[in-house]
Amino acid sequence: MSDPSTDFSLQTVLAAADSELPASLQRLFSLLAIPSISTDPAFAEHCRQAADWLAKDLADLGFDASVRPTPGHPIVVAHDLSADGPHVLFYGHYDVQPVDPLSLWDNPPFEPKLIDGLDGQRIAARGASDDKGQVMTFVEACRAYRRTHGKLPIKVTILLEGEEESGGANLPGFIAANTAELTADIALVCDTDLWDSQTPSVTTMLRGLVGEEVEITCANKDLHSGMFGNAARNPNQVLAGIIASLRDADGRVTLPGFYDDVAELPPQVKAQWDGLGFDESAFLAKVGLSIPAGEKGRSVLEQVWSRPTLEINGMIGGYTGDGFKTVIPSKASAKISFRLVSNMDPQKIRNSFREHVRARVPGDCTVTFREHGGSRALTVPAEGPFLKGALDALTAEWDRPALITGSGGSIPVGGEFKRILGLDTLFIGFALNDDRIHSPNEKYEVRSFSKGIRSWIRILDAFRAISA
Amino acid sequence: MSDPSTDFSLQTVLAAADSELPASLQRLFSLLAIPSISTDPAFAEHCRQAADWLAKDLADLGFDASVRPTPGHPIVVAHDLSADGPHVLFYGHYDVQPVDPLSLWDNPPFEPKLIDGLDGQRIAARGASDDKGQVMTFVEACRAYRRTHGKLPIKVTILLEGEEESGGANLPGFIAANTAELTADIALVCDTDLWDSQTPSVTTMLRGLVGEEVEITCANKDLHSGMFGNAARNPNQVLAGIIASLRDADGRVTLPGFYDDVAELPPQVKAQWDGLGFDESAFLAKVGLSIPAGEKGRSVLEQVWSRPTLEINGMIGGYTGDGFKTVIPSKASAKISFRLVSNMDPQKIRNSFREHVRARVPGDCTVTFREHGGSRALTVPAEGPFLKGALDALTAEWDRPALITGSGGSIPVGGEFKRILGLDTLFIGFALNDDRIHSPNEKYEVRSFSKGIRSWIRILDAFRAISA
Repeated sequence: MSDPSTDFSLQTVLAAADSELPASLQRLFSLLAIPSISTDPAFAEHCRQAADWLAKDLADLGFDASVRPTPGHPIVVAHDLSADGPHVLFYGHYDVQPVDPLSLWDNPPFEPKLIDGLDGQRIAARGASDDKGQVMTFVEACRAYRRTHGKLPIKVTILLEGEEESGGANLPGFIAANTAELTADIALVCDTDLWDSQTPSVTTMLRGLVGEEVEITCANKDLHSGMFGNAARNPNQVLAGIIASLRDADGRVTLPGFYDDVAELPPQVKAQWDGLGFDESAFLAKVGLSIPAGEKGRSVLEQVWSRPTLEINGMIGGYTGDGFKTVIPSKASAKISFRLVSNMDPQKIRNSFREHVRARVPGDCTVTFREHGGSRALTVPAEGPFLKGALDALTAEWDRPALITGSGGSIPVGGEFKRILGLDTLFIGFALNDDRIHSPNEKYEVRSFSKGIRSWIRILDAFRAISA
Repeated sequence: MSDPSTDFSLQTVLAAADSELPASLQRLFSLLAIPSISTDPAFAEHCRQAADWLAKDLADLGFDASVRPTPGHPIVVAHDLSADGPHVLFYGHYDVQPVDPLSLWDNPPFEPKLIDGLDGQRIAARGASDDKGQVMTFVEACRAYRRTHGKLPIKVTILLEGEEESGGANLPGFIAANTAELTADIALVCDTDLWDSQTPSVTTMLRGLVGEEVEITCANKDLHSGMFGNAARNPNQVLAGIIASLRDADGRVTLPGFYDDVAELPPQVKAQWDGLGFDESAFLAKVGLSIPAGEKGRSVLEQVWSRPTLEINGMIGGYTGDGFKTVIPSKASAKISFRLVSNMDPQKIRNSFREHVRARVPGDCTVTFREHGGSRALTVPAEGPFLKGALDALTAEWDRPALITGSGGSIPVGGEFKRILGLDTLFIGFALNDDRIHSPNEKYEVRSFSKGIRSWIRILDAFRAISA
């Protein structure tokens, strides 16, 4: 038997991961069964339970693992610094999105199940893809090293938060308060997609996010629309007018200065994206649509990767139950998010939005705002030994050249790692864009899970050769 | 003792009603405790229970009372035709509006309670004013005659429906199927307001109602706004645009032809209304508003009594729970009602609305409509012996000249009585416009209840002299 301190036989570790797959799935299912919905206070205890589960699993693996309190849901931190070589900071989140409407789920969201898919079996559960399944690809890769060689190939710190789906308000403060403990050579985040089911990618461009909740109050109580209809201002009408005013007929956001800090895509990047063979019609057809709704004259990839947007994530006012109720409600509200790119400033966008809204609220009505997170867009330099090592490792595992891509989503932690710790982040994920994250019937391909574990094994191996 | 068949001593009956008031309130409380919410199928059994309660109470009073099935909630019919003289058809409804948001009620809505108000005590409960309290003013008036004279002064048929708050779909068919049984000399409806707490009125002008539910579907499932934001059409945005397009900046409804069949108010009626001393500012201030929202250049009384309107009674789309969810929903929907006046045709308005909406739905999205009732406006001739008798009786009870007024609400049954039975209807009610009907903390003044009973006693007495 070879000496584990000097010889990490990659094939041995990969083989161990493969034979361990059924047990790895069992562990993932235990985690998926915990309804750790962070946005709903009713599930706070379950968030705590998910954090405990992960800390215990990492401790069993030899990590120095702890569950650390925050003013919100706890954060799990685990270290294994026993190896030589560089130090990576791996980030993921254990919290999940709400599950409503529950009636649209084929299988209860917190009773994970293997079901047949088009490309082998898939794991059906809330969080299967976003992000518990992805988190466990990394944990299982570490486990395979431990089982075969008794230690990890490089230094690893794992940071798992529980508020990624609900604004992540407490993470920046936690990072700032623990810089010495969290600083590493590179950050790794597993919360993004493959390019397609056969092609891995490292994401280097992510949109920022501003979340706003706006509530319009007109009368001081609900009114009868017969008695007051016409004369009393209806907050549904006011809110709808405001929402309608936010986009023009060409799909552009109308807020003054909204596009001021938006950089045009560099020609070579645009050329690379145009060469990806992205099928716009198929992308939209998969979700039942056919007409791109964003800015006219921009490709769909630009619309979702490199252009800012505004979306009405929720709106409600008045009677919305069964039947009919002829009420003029007192209040109406909406949850609105902005995706930012380039140098757009979250606070500037928030201010511009609030000013736009205030100017449209009638004099005898009031408006209140509530902030739900704000983060800048992030662009990771497309060079450096870690990126090259990751691309090579992914290319070897998937037998296809790994791509460098953008993403329409927002993972604010990358910006915080840069700002507070001075770290670049590589976004490497194995999800598919049909995983229905945030929707009913979320799933994660078993293939994503298995090849994700194998990919991390190869990436950690590739990083061994980099001098810290 | 006088002969009850020839001498109805009015003062005896009024005195009996006064001494019976505590017991009358107890009976009303029993009825109010039944949560007969007609629009929510979960309360069907309670609607049935309210109908049974009323039929039993009327039978105890000597009426030939029955609970009659319909495809929806049952209808109560009761006759006492033992007297000479004219025959009145009294209409009311035993169903009530939903109670959400429950958290805004000071007292549980179905645990009726006497509370102190500004003008004596008031009855706090859902349905206290609309319409159980008003229904029982008539029933208690009949009871006072029975107790004192052993019979009623004129022929009375009572018709109580259970779907007034949910479209009333089954009432017209029921009336048409039972014309012989329901035909009388005049119809009386107790579902309207006093002019103010001191001044009675007979309402002769009521708006019609068209209810529509519209649902917009874009993608075939909820989407992640990071992955799809910009490119995927957002139904909240589509619906808000449609709602915003329905009214212009001057408060006018924009549907083509909407005002075609709206008659201008006759000058003498307008003069009478202008002379009412109606305080627009106070009317709006009472509900926390100050700027009339309807058509510019129209008085508030015109806006709510004689002009048509469109109101967004409810709208919902996407995530509306606690916290934030970055979703692009698949669907968004709204409940929209129109109040009609003059000769406006409900079907024409409905068609015009649907055409307007369809023209604004993007090509890859769909819209579905659901009808929630439709009725024409109603104008009762301001003359005839029954109207004169009622005005005289009300004037005597309240010691103020009773007014002839309009109402912004819609009581479709008046139109059905005219169309099917050829009957005119007098709308006589004792509610106040601050009774918070359809809102949390609905109430009915004990004074309304008590003087309502006395008013009906006087009206029935006045009608005795009219030859049928």
